[in-house]
Amino acid sequence: MKIKELKLEDLHLEEFIEDKIEEITAIVGSGSAINALSGGVDSSTVTMLSHRALEDRLKTYFIDNGLMRQAEPERIVGLFGELGIPVEIVDAQKLFFDALKGITDPEAKREAITQTFYKAVFGRLVKASDAKYLLQGTNYTDVEETVAGIKRQHNILAQLGIDTEEAYGYMVIEPLIQLRKPAIRAVAHALGLPEEIYKRPPFPGPALAARVIGEVTPERVELVRKATRIVEEELQRTGAFQYLAILHEDRVIGMREGKRDYGMQIEVRCWESEDAITGAPTRLPYEVLERLADRITTEVPGVVSVTYNITKKPPSTIEAV
Amino acid sequence: MKIKELKLEDLHLEEFIEDKIEEITAIVGSGSAINALSGGVDSSTVTMLSHRALEDRLKTYFIDNGLMRQAEPERIVGLFGELGIPVEIVDAQKLFFDALKGITDPEAKREAITQTFYKAVFGRLVKASDAKYLLQGTNYTDVEETVAGIKRQHNILAQLGIDTEEAYGYMVIEPLIQLRKPAIRAVAHALGLPEEIYKRPPFPGPALAARVIGEVTPERVELVRKATRIVEEELQRTGAFQYLAILHEDRVIGMREGKRDYGMQIEVRCWESEDAITGAPTRLPYEVLERLADRITTEVPGVVSVTYNITKKPPSTIEAV
Repeated sequence: MKIKELKLEDLHLEEFIEDKIEEITAIVGSGSAINALSGGVDSSTVTMLSHRALEDRLKTYFIDNGLMRQAEPERIVGLFGELGIPVEIVDAQKLFFDALKGITDPEAKREAITQTFYKAVFGRLVKASDAKYLLQGTNYTDVEETVAGIKRQHNILAQLGIDTEEAYGYMVIEPLIQLRKPAIRAVAHALGLPEEIYKRPPFPGPALAARVIGEVTPERVELVRKATRIVEEELQRTGAFQYLAILHEDRVIGMREGKRDYGMQIEVRCWESEDAITGAPTRLPYEVLERLADRITTEVPGVVSVTYNITKKPPSTIEAV
Repeated sequence: MKIKELKLEDLHLEEFIEDKIEEITAIVGSGSAINALSGGVDSSTVTMLSHRALEDRLKTYFIDNGLMRQAEPERIVGLFGELGIPVEIVDAQKLFFDALKGITDPEAKREAITQTFYKAVFGRLVKASDAKYLLQGTNYTDVEETVAGIKRQHNILAQLGIDTEEAYGYMVIEPLIQLRKPAIRAVAHALGLPEEIYKRPPFPGPALAARVIGEVTPERVELVRKATRIVEEELQRTGAFQYLAILHEDRVIGMREGKRDYGMQIEVRCWESEDAITGAPTRLPYEVLERLADRITTEVPGVVSVTYNITKKPPSTIEAV
């Protein structure tokens, strides 16, 4: 089956939403469905659509992998609670950190997180539940990237550790598969999701693990989490495409109270981009850069140096890991 | 003996120069003397003063440690040649790189370079020569730092591997010991040294080894040498106190010709400072930062990312290693 893109300009929002609700209702029938919410715009939109179709026959999980931003699990679950959608938090922090132990290669990190999410955590939840229907926020860009061989999202059942025999009866529903991000944001808005969801800047799948160069430990994630909060507080008003803090593994010499302090470095990136395919560093005023450096070296323990990325994409990429 | 500072405002340049020439002439008498020239303002000034006092009874060596900037040995030796002062280049690159092999700790790097310079290279030249007089560019800041326990420059004979018994008869002459940098620059100017010497920005003792995070190999020094040339070309017109390129050990993801390229990162620092005790990053225009990033990622093989330091000293230091 060839999937055809549905462009933002051709999208009738109310019609699209009604169609998808009908479709999900028709497929699931009197059964029950399951999905994982990350708080990103795709999974949030799927959760809203599916809940409107299935109500209490939908079971939504928020997997806390320990790699989220500060207070993110509670914030997302609270926000959906206000919308009348119950979400269960699954504390899987130890499983993820165990899987990440000793890994420094970026690809190996991403693979460890993917495997842990699908096989060790969500796969078990699916198998333990009565639900035979999985709702998934796959979008048109994911489809294109699968064709281009960049990502491997096409066989979700295999990723969940459900092989074809066992899998008999399971069905994956992907209501957003014809849409790209701008169209999904429009649907999210029309569904009544709050601005912090439908305008949310892109955030990587591996979450803060993508912001740590070298080994990902709870302690190092906590440092980059603190720096991320400062960067988001200081830069959200810029309207930039994306802004991030990266904890480096290299140590540099610094000074604290007149003494040599062999400390850590945080790199800040802030991007102007339309589509993440190309990008340029935002020309932030020096007052902003200096305040970032002051706050990060004061508020994040052990950090003595802060740099700002000045390289375009390409040859840089948005994220460093 | 307590050394007393001679301040720039109290310095009678011609009188000081004549006094020092007389002093060196009187001490060395009909003997011969030896010194090492690095091209920095201190050793250049000592070389000029000593040559005026001793002429062909002075033997000046330029130790090529393989850690110099591009074409620096030839440039410095050529420049002194034009002033009528012969300088012999000693190729000691292999000795220094052997000593640096496998070392990543900044202090251990500095120690390896100091030991190699004094014991393995210059110490042997001194012992092999007839000269019993060493001329040394020790300045007043070095004296202060020795008192404060920051550096250990006071016992040069011990550093040269000349113990007290063997050392009988050796004498160290330090004509600049009462002067700080601004006064030495004035003396250098009055002696007729060219602007590129007397206005030369500070450059660290361990040279480009101080600009490499992680192991110092000929290949990695060559990369930071290329980046240093670009940074110096682009930033010398700023009149900043100091500007430098640092090769990081951390790798970051980049893109070349549409493909993932796990590459290297260069950090640029440019400092406003009076005295190197405190400092602030220069507020370089973004056009300059972007040109630096473009040139470095284009001209230095394997570099996909360039950052700019935005942290004050303290808590940063001028150099990272």
